[in-house]
Amino acid sequence: MYAQAYFAYDSKKSGGVTISHLRFGKQPIKAPYLIHKADFIACHNQSYVDRYNVLEGLKQGGSFLLNCTWNERELAENLPTAMKRYIWENKINFYIIDAVGIAQKIGLGGRINMIMQAAFFKIADIIPVEEATNYLKEAVLMSYGKKGDKVVAMNNAAIDTGVNASVKVRVPASWGNVQAVEDREKPVPAFVKNILVPMNRQEGDALPVSALIAVEDGTFPLGTAAYEKRGIAITVPAWQADKCIQCNQCAYVCPHAAIRPVLVDEKEMAKVPAAFVTKPATGIKDMNFRMAVSPLDCTGCGNCAQICPAQEKALVMEPLATQLGQAELWEYALSLTPKPNPIKKETVKGSQFEQALLEFSGACAGCGETPYAKLVTQLFGDRMMVANATGCSSVWAGSTPSIPYTTNHCGHGPAWGNSLFEDNAEYGLGMLLGVKQLRNKLSLDIEQAVQLDLGDEWKAACKEWLEHKDSGQGTREKADRLIAELEKVKSNEPLIREIYKNKDFLVKRSHWIFGGDGWAYDIGFGGLEHVLASGEDVNVLVFDTEVYSNTGGQSSKATPTAAIAKFAASGKRTGKKDLGMIAMSYGYVYVAQIAMGADKNQTLKAIVEAEAYPGPSLVIAYAPCINHGLKAGMSLSQQEAKRAVDSGYWLLYRYNPQAKEAGQKTLLIDSKEPTIDFKEFLMGEVRYSSLQKQFPDVSEVLFEKTKQDARARLERYRQLAGR
Amino acid sequence: MYAQAYFAYDSKKSGGVTISHLRFGKQPIKAPYLIHKADFIACHNQSYVDRYNVLEGLKQGGSFLLNCTWNERELAENLPTAMKRYIWENKINFYIIDAVGIAQKIGLGGRINMIMQAAFFKIADIIPVEEATNYLKEAVLMSYGKKGDKVVAMNNAAIDTGVNASVKVRVPASWGNVQAVEDREKPVPAFVKNILVPMNRQEGDALPVSALIAVEDGTFPLGTAAYEKRGIAITVPAWQADKCIQCNQCAYVCPHAAIRPVLVDEKEMAKVPAAFVTKPATGIKDMNFRMAVSPLDCTGCGNCAQICPAQEKALVMEPLATQLGQAELWEYALSLTPKPNPIKKETVKGSQFEQALLEFSGACAGCGETPYAKLVTQLFGDRMMVANATGCSSVWAGSTPSIPYTTNHCGHGPAWGNSLFEDNAEYGLGMLLGVKQLRNKLSLDIEQAVQLDLGDEWKAACKEWLEHKDSGQGTREKADRLIAELEKVKSNEPLIREIYKNKDFLVKRSHWIFGGDGWAYDIGFGGLEHVLASGEDVNVLVFDTEVYSNTGGQSSKATPTAAIAKFAASGKRTGKKDLGMIAMSYGYVYVAQIAMGADKNQTLKAIVEAEAYPGPSLVIAYAPCINHGLKAGMSLSQQEAKRAVDSGYWLLYRYNPQAKEAGQKTLLIDSKEPTIDFKEFLMGEVRYSSLQKQFPDVSEVLFEKTKQDARARLERYRQLAGR
Repeated sequence: MYAQAYFAYDSKKSGGVTISHLRFGKQPIKAPYLIHKADFIACHNQSYVDRYNVLEGLKQGGSFLLNCTWNERELAENLPTAMKRYIWENKINFYIIDAVGIAQKIGLGGRINMIMQAAFFKIADIIPVEEATNYLKEAVLMSYGKKGDKVVAMNNAAIDTGVNASVKVRVPASWGNVQAVEDREKPVPAFVKNILVPMNRQEGDALPVSALIAVEDGTFPLGTAAYEKRGIAITVPAWQADKCIQCNQCAYVCPHAAIRPVLVDEKEMAKVPAAFVTKPATGIKDMNFRMAVSPLDCTGCGNCAQICPAQEKALVMEPLATQLGQAELWEYALSLTPKPNPIKKETVKGSQFEQALLEFSGACAGCGETPYAKLVTQLFGDRMMVANATGCSSVWAGSTPSIPYTTNHCGHGPAWGNSLFEDNAEYGLGMLLGVKQLRNKLSLDIEQAVQLDLGDEWKAACKEWLEHKDSGQGTREKADRLIAELEKVKSNEPLIREIYKNKDFLVKRSHWIFGGDGWAYDIGFGGLEHVLASGEDVNVLVFDTEVYSNTGGQSSKATPTAAIAKFAASGKRTGKKDLGMIAMSYGYVYVAQIAMGADKNQTLKAIVEAEAYPGPSLVIAYAPCINHGLKAGMSLSQQEAKRAVDSGYWLLYRYNPQAKEAGQKTLLIDSKEPTIDFKEFLMGEVRYSSLQKQFPDVSEVLFEKTKQDARARLERYRQLAGR
Repeated sequence: MYAQAYFAYDSKKSGGVTISHLRFGKQPIKAPYLIHKADFIACHNQSYVDRYNVLEGLKQGGSFLLNCTWNERELAENLPTAMKRYIWENKINFYIIDAVGIAQKIGLGGRINMIMQAAFFKIADIIPVEEATNYLKEAVLMSYGKKGDKVVAMNNAAIDTGVNASVKVRVPASWGNVQAVEDREKPVPAFVKNILVPMNRQEGDALPVSALIAVEDGTFPLGTAAYEKRGIAITVPAWQADKCIQCNQCAYVCPHAAIRPVLVDEKEMAKVPAAFVTKPATGIKDMNFRMAVSPLDCTGCGNCAQICPAQEKALVMEPLATQLGQAELWEYALSLTPKPNPIKKETVKGSQFEQALLEFSGACAGCGETPYAKLVTQLFGDRMMVANATGCSSVWAGSTPSIPYTTNHCGHGPAWGNSLFEDNAEYGLGMLLGVKQLRNKLSLDIEQAVQLDLGDEWKAACKEWLEHKDSGQGTREKADRLIAELEKVKSNEPLIREIYKNKDFLVKRSHWIFGGDGWAYDIGFGGLEHVLASGEDVNVLVFDTEVYSNTGGQSSKATPTAAIAKFAASGKRTGKKDLGMIAMSYGYVYVAQIAMGADKNQTLKAIVEAEAYPGPSLVIAYAPCINHGLKAGMSLSQQEAKRAVDSGYWLLYRYNPQAKEAGQKTLLIDSKEPTIDFKEFLMGEVRYSSLQKQFPDVSEVLFEKTKQDARARLERYRQLAGR
């Protein structure tokens, strides 16, 4: 028996679509094209039945296997009309299986691959099913053997269960008669209708060139991820209003901005639907509070529920299907009037009353990177420019056709661009230098214009702007005031017209350079270092997953000793590069290491200080990643970051060159003495624990070295901090 | 009056040839080709009369101006026959001028340009001579105004003197009759005769392709700079045997390996020529000592004489012409049998009994870079591989056609290559990885071969090699012993033949990566950092001139605050990058900062330790440079390095990761407390002093910052060293 396989996939980091085109035959198969007529089609995600034309090309009498949580009645309610008719008209053998239910029962979480494979071999009947299950078990041993016996046993159980778990659906004759009900389409922007939706349905290749008129220069509109409503979560948080203490931590850590506090004023309260539960906002007068959840944008990681500090959890993870009613309430919440932030935005709670200008990205469930980026947009998003290195952060932030960076009600949002892997720092510096040049010119113009006889208010607005032009704090208000004056004076003076033309540059921009450790520590380091050394006012945020995440986990210079990664299959031998120490060596670079899950306040402080520092800043953020193999699962990625700090594995610190002038310590070590065992932390992640399994002889030595490297680093920092 | 100028030049850093092709006329000149028929030719260096066909193309009745120290009688003795006949037969108006004598009298050292320009305008009579001198003086003010009044005054004096200093030679009729005496040509290698000499005579373009057969792959033979005998010095050291204390420091600091200690045994003593003065070698039995000088290879910098610690200087700088007799004695000295080093080669004195395998390079007189490279070749040259970054070090070491790297009497010498500016570290790492692979294979072969029944001596040689194969110390002897065994066993065993084939890899190689600060701090840093992080056993030597020297002094990240450089015309604002601190942050990189002129022992120790360290090493060497504008002149470049250290401007330290295991301090600060004033040091170099002149308002602030940067750095190092 020969097999051939082609895989077509989109670029979403999770919940994206992979289409496997498989052929089997007694002769070698040399068919260099995809399958257009299939005997068997399986759909592994029930939400796809609405999103893709799943059955396209399935032969008459062919088989269709759908993984879903629906019973036969629910099936009838949920399958789209066209699918029902196709099944009936083409006499499709239709099977369903609840692979998620089985996987969870076995302990495999959301990993349904073995169950679905076993079911496939049972239904497709390509080789005797006993043979197939034996092969599958051999493959399990080969693939997961190094991950331990437990993993092997669970996967074997998945095979044994999966092979008999599919149920043939009795297709009722009524499916042949159902009338296609035209969905009431919500009005959406032309870009979404004409480009985003077709591309997301994997029908982008069929778009005519004419469809791309208006975006032919490659500039795509922001905020389009909000139209995807992918519904990929298995469970989503359900808010328990009575338990909630309104701390906003759930929103703070959410990687997808799918849970947000909403404030409702008295006028609005009079009109809210009954299901729109609220409670009086603690400490905010005449306001009600609601934690809104978007079930269709949530990826179901569960970090929100895990992080909830309420005595009884105010968030409970519930099956998606039970929470679909929240979708409408989410839209309702977003339709309320934006309120000025009632508390200081530079606090954990206050930051969440600011609109996230990064939402619903394609990042994995539980991603350790996006919560940092999201927070930055909440603080500075309306005046941000971002140069993004190639890597996960360029993929979750810019997977054509959708863009998760968005704009606020004034139309202000981050300007975002991605250049090459190796030149991102330079790209970001270029953005800054261009803006600097324009603002210098603007400044000279305003210095001249202040002399014009245009009244005292004009003069005052100009002077205020000139005085504060390089300060981020309050820059929007000062710019708005000057713009209002510009509009008021209605002068035809060329100088005034010139200033008005450049009014977008009146706001002090916040320049950011984003990238992962593969970029910052390795491929882009030469440029990063040069840009930091330049002394210019740029802010660098490194998502440190300690591995090339986007390409599947290759070793980078951020990978610590002993970690198993691609190109370091027997554990990395050299230690983790100390990027922060390198940056500190200049003496004029703000440097911080943060870990949101470990210290939300320190994370916020570091980001705020970095942005305010009038020179280069480097913030290195610990980001748990699927490549780490968290034994606790990605639903505990925030807690894992805490364990990294608590064990002394990851150090929290802030180095602020300005502190010296104020007579304070430049280097502050924010980590406390380790409270959990270092090796215990390592053993919680497959990247380390599998070393012990595969190379027991060297693992102890390498683990000890990892620990000693971390200790030596702490010691070095303490020396520099003057203890 | 219009002028047109083309300049053709070779790539020697000093003493090279520049040919200025100048045209003047009342109409604009658009002649895009060089001059083949000239009215006037000047030769600014008397040694050129033998080396180039200087008068080629000079018209009948044209003028020839020769800068020389010869009077008319000496002229007759020294001019080559062909030149004399050309002058007579073509009725050339022949002028001489002693521009060097004038420049020295005025205080301009070897700078003769203004004198020669003035003399040109006088003789060539293109514009009225008063006008010409006025223009020249205007140009002086523009070019040198920022260097201070004294410099302007000296140059004006040079113009005033030069304009009347040329003397017309009464060409005797006898010059028309002189017979060309065929020089007794010393036998030289074919490469030298057929390629090097024509190319050096600027006749390379006329070489037929066939002349390059045998070097068509770009591999040029080593040791060819020794055939150049450029004779570009004005004064050269004359050894005062009676005063000499045999410390070898003069040889140690010589940038061109043009002064070397020679040992003469008793047998040889019996045959030496009378002029070959020696004295009994101190502490070495039955040996005589001589400090040999090569007047034709010397560039006349005078650092040897300056550094001589003898109570009365044992080296006195004398005009080249008076020392030409030494040339033959130099050749004689080199012809003596090589002696095993009678003392430890890892000492300043002992190192100089090792043959310099870098000699007579094209570097500037007083170059701060070459003494380091030369010393490395004395210690490891017979087993070195060098990857060289683009920059001065690639130019002085590899100016086609000649190569100053050479081989010893066994034919062993450095293998040297130059790749791109930006990838030199990777290039050097590649050399190592290639060799490592071959040696690993060799090692496996020998492990097998030791089992063969080839006698006890064979087994012993194999075992000894296997045990010590990765140690540089004694590797040559162990390899030689094994090679001798290989030749003795004369086995046809394929394994033995394979080992013999790879015998060049038996010696542990010493892998070096050379480059300047423009490479190491800037353009090649991304790669350098990656290579250091790799943990591989490479040695990096950075010639830190704190500026892009080769291209004329652009600012690099090694340039300290306040220094004036190209792209930092008003003084650099950011501080010097701390390359050493960055390398130390890995914890497994050997790092040292050295300054030969400040501490010869520490320099030697650092280089020896770096090479012995079985991992990556980085040695940052302070290298005074013509771009610094030393007020004391390049003859005191070694002393300037000492002042840099004595003022606290440059820090000496060694960081040895291995020390930790031995329970010792990893970081040793070798500098002492500053003994001279920091600003006094700065004021001794035009790169700093000119800031004061041009930007008096900011200079004090910037000087203070430079000082504070250096202080802060020292403080940081002390913290890390644990005081």
